[in-house]
Amino acid sequence: MEYSNLQKWSAEFLGTFWLTLGGCGSAVLAAGFPELGIGFTGVSLAFGLTVLTGAYAFGPISGGHFNPAVSVGLALGGRFRAAELPGYVVAQVLGAVAAAGVLYLIATGKPGAVVGGFATNGYGAHSPGGYDMVAALLTEVVLTAVFLLVILGVTAKRAAAGFAGLAIGLCLTLIHLVSIPVTNTSVNPARSTGPALFGPSVALDQLWLFWVAPIAGAALGALIWRTLLAHRHDD
Amino acid sequence: MEYSNLQKWSAEFLGTFWLTLGGCGSAVLAAGFPELGIGFTGVSLAFGLTVLTGAYAFGPISGGHFNPAVSVGLALGGRFRAAELPGYVVAQVLGAVAAAGVLYLIATGKPGAVVGGFATNGYGAHSPGGYDMVAALLTEVVLTAVFLLVILGVTAKRAAAGFAGLAIGLCLTLIHLVSIPVTNTSVNPARSTGPALFGPSVALDQLWLFWVAPIAGAALGALIWRTLLAHRHDD
Amino acid sequence: MEYSNLQKWSAEFLGTFWLTLGGCGSAVLAAGFPELGIGFTGVSLAFGLTVLTGAYAFGPISGGHFNPAVSVGLALGGRFRAAELPGYVVAQVLGAVAAAGVLYLIATGKPGAVVGGFATNGYGAHSPGGYDMVAALLTEVVLTAVFLLVILGVTAKRAAAGFAGLAIGLCLTLIHLVSIPVTNTSVNPARSTGPALFGPSVALDQLWLFWVAPIAGAALGALIWRTLLAHRHDD
Amino acid sequence: MEYSNLQKWSAEFLGTFWLTLGGCGSAVLAAGFPELGIGFTGVSLAFGLTVLTGAYAFGPISGGHFNPAVSVGLALGGRFRAAELPGYVVAQVLGAVAAAGVLYLIATGKPGAVVGGFATNGYGAHSPGGYDMVAALLTEVVLTAVFLLVILGVTAKRAAAGFAGLAIGLCLTLIHLVSIPVTNTSVNPARSTGPALFGPSVALDQLWLFWVAPIAGAALGALIWRTLLAHRHDD
Repeated sequence: MEYSNLQKWSAEFLGTFWLTLGGCGSAVLAAGFPELGIGFTGVSLAFGLTVLTGAYAFGPISGGHFNPAVSVGLALGGRFRAAELPGYVVAQVLGAVAAAGVLYLIATGKPGAVVGGFATNGYGAHSPGGYDMVAALLTEVVLTAVFLLVILGVTAKRAAAGFAGLAIGLCLTLIHLVSIPVTNTSVNPARSTGPALFGPSVALDQLWLFWVAPIAGAALGALIWRTLLAHRHDD
Repeated sequence: MEYSNLQKWSAEFLGTFWLTLGGCGSAVLAAGFPELGIGFTGVSLAFGLTVLTGAYAFGPISGGHFNPAVSVGLALGGRFRAAELPGYVVAQVLGAVAAAGVLYLIATGKPGAVVGGFATNGYGAHSPGGYDMVAALLTEVVLTAVFLLVILGVTAKRAAAGFAGLAIGLCLTLIHLVSIPVTNTSVNPARSTGPALFGPSVALDQLWLFWVAPIAGAALGALIWRTLLAHRHDD
Repeated sequence: MEYSNLQKWSAEFLGTFWLTLGGCGSAVLAAGFPELGIGFTGVSLAFGLTVLTGAYAFGPISGGHFNPAVSVGLALGGRFRAAELPGYVVAQVLGAVAAAGVLYLIATGKPGAVVGGFATNGYGAHSPGGYDMVAALLTEVVLTAVFLLVILGVTAKRAAAGFAGLAIGLCLTLIHLVSIPVTNTSVNPARSTGPALFGPSVALDQLWLFWVAPIAGAALGALIWRTLLAHRHDD
Repeated sequence: MEYSNLQKWSAEFLGTFWLTLGGCGSAVLAAGFPELGIGFTGVSLAFGLTVLTGAYAFGPISGGHFNPAVSVGLALGGRFRAAELPGYVVAQVLGAVAAAGVLYLIATGKPGAVVGGFATNGYGAHSPGGYDMVAALLTEVVLTAVFLLVILGVTAKRAAAGFAGLAIGLCLTLIHLVSIPVTNTSVNPARSTGPALFGPSVALDQLWLFWVAPIAGAALGALIWRTLLAHRHDD
């Protein structure tokens, strides 16, 4: 079955909309709710489940990237045509921005609402735990690299059929369980861009890192895969 | 294999009974237990697992809707015969009411029991976080729309066989992780109706929103699917 | 492939050992750990994962009951030979007792250890939330009934192949998310018996309820299945 | 498809790197974060998800052991060639050490960072809950034995295809839910060794136990499997 470009872009738009609305929404609305809040565990679960559900629902249409770094990594890994990159990345960023806008409307829909960090990513004084820029770079590069290794592994021909969406989604949950305290966890430039447009200005100042580090990490992951793990029957 | 109407209605009754007993039961009995309570994370997990387990157990019999908004959305999406809607919706509402009754008996089965909000949905002063009617409408419409997109996607022909129940159940968990603070999360008019009959009177006053918004959202999701994503080999 | 009785009994012994050690172990050792404890959410997850892992590991050998009420329910549902009941139930109870013994050794292996409730089940003053005997009976009967409905559903011929262990395990997680505050959650007479031998004497006094109610519930579930849902191609 | 030794060792290196970085990283960085921290539940989930994701991604290449005790147990269970043990164990230990080094760099990347226990395993005064050496030994032996039983079961020929990675990963989550308070949970000598090189000196002093007990437990599990459960069509 072939899908049109419009269908693929719609799938990437909707999937990244869902990733940003679900993940950042859980962080903004529910993480710190008094006594009953979901904390970082709940937010981690939410981010992973956006990808898990999106992968099973929209993956058959577009491949289910929902993340510019993933699209770049898959292109470098030989699993995605580079010519499709611009359309995918534009759709992803637009989806994330739309989600951040909807979330902003909801979050401000109560008396005395305070937007606060708005689930933006950051380092230094804007890191949840106060981690510096080097720690943030290292964290985002390494975690995105392993994320791509997992994605390339579970979508290889020999992998267990059907389980890719489960493994990739729960991999994103795991990444958040580790790194929310460091950078609020990006590994996804689109997810970082949407909230940065509505949050504190420091988020826009630091946004460069959350494009550079995830994409560099994705490239590193693709490189490791091709050098050390790839098999000619993978694809 | 064909099932009789009685079997389908029984499956929808039991599945919605389970959804309401398990989801609202976890909220009423366990969410706020001193020190060890499950909080919104546990309640989110519980709601999702009712659908996950119900979908695998009863889905082969009735399709596993357990939700009038889902039934309407599937009908509009061309996956469910509209003539079956009345029977399904009646069974779902009866199941939810029965579950709320059982839960009421359990919850009041201790000295000094206070029923409180009884897991009802609400907005304004009856929203857990104090969100207003517009925020509640927006939240319920958007989340139900994506819920339907996920359901239509994971049950399409091309989707990974067997994983639909997992993805749909965990999608409901995700929806709760985001929106319990806003409306206590409905996306399901039957689930809202059962507890409203036993809870504070404000819940009945506001019940209209939890019929209108989820059904509008489901229609929106079905429309987006048919316009942007559907493939002639989906069904 | 056929397995010997010894192999089946070993599988049931080990599976129920694992259920009791993992579930009750998480409750006794980790639930109330200061600040970082797993609470009822973690205990619920642990109980479910004992069954999920046991079902995939030992299920092909014995069917993976690990619970006298399940064995009875499956026999009444026509999925298990009644002649095999005694051997299964004995193996299950022995496994639970062995696990409780090991857990007792671990739990007392620190200076000033206090065993406390030792994850026993109870009602009235011995209910975690103070629920009375009627509430406890109702809770255990209803939840075990749905448990059996789920088990019968997901192991029917038409159900999605391979997903039974996932759905049954997570169903037990869900049951715990709802009912730990009421009875500390049994739905399994073997799991109740093991810890009762090492815990406070009230647990032994009340043990009858956790044999009667789960088995009655299982019978009810099997009856509902056969009356309302069963299909001649199920088995 | 055959993979080269270099590919297998790379897969084991990367998988154990991921297990240690993800599991210990979540413990060091996120477990005790003020108010929003993930606690033992989040750490347990993280450890399990490292194995779940690693098993689906790298398992087709190397078998996905990521743990010297697992490699030994599989060799004794007749599922892995003993001649491959040295290469696998070296790759696993190197992966864990590399991960601990990366984690150390991240954890110290903020003003006033205190490394603390650095997710090392221990007993007595170095046990999170103060459990003594005998309790620690018993816990690690029994839990690793059941871990191997689960692994041997879910990878047997008759087991449900594709679900092994899910069951094994979630089994590790379950093991952590039970035993973090006792030993901080090892069941994996490589995971114990990496952090011990960067943590408090007591961790190195006690490291012997976390080689001896998991390997003894794995051998016990393999023995039980072969004696009581194995079928000639398993492998």
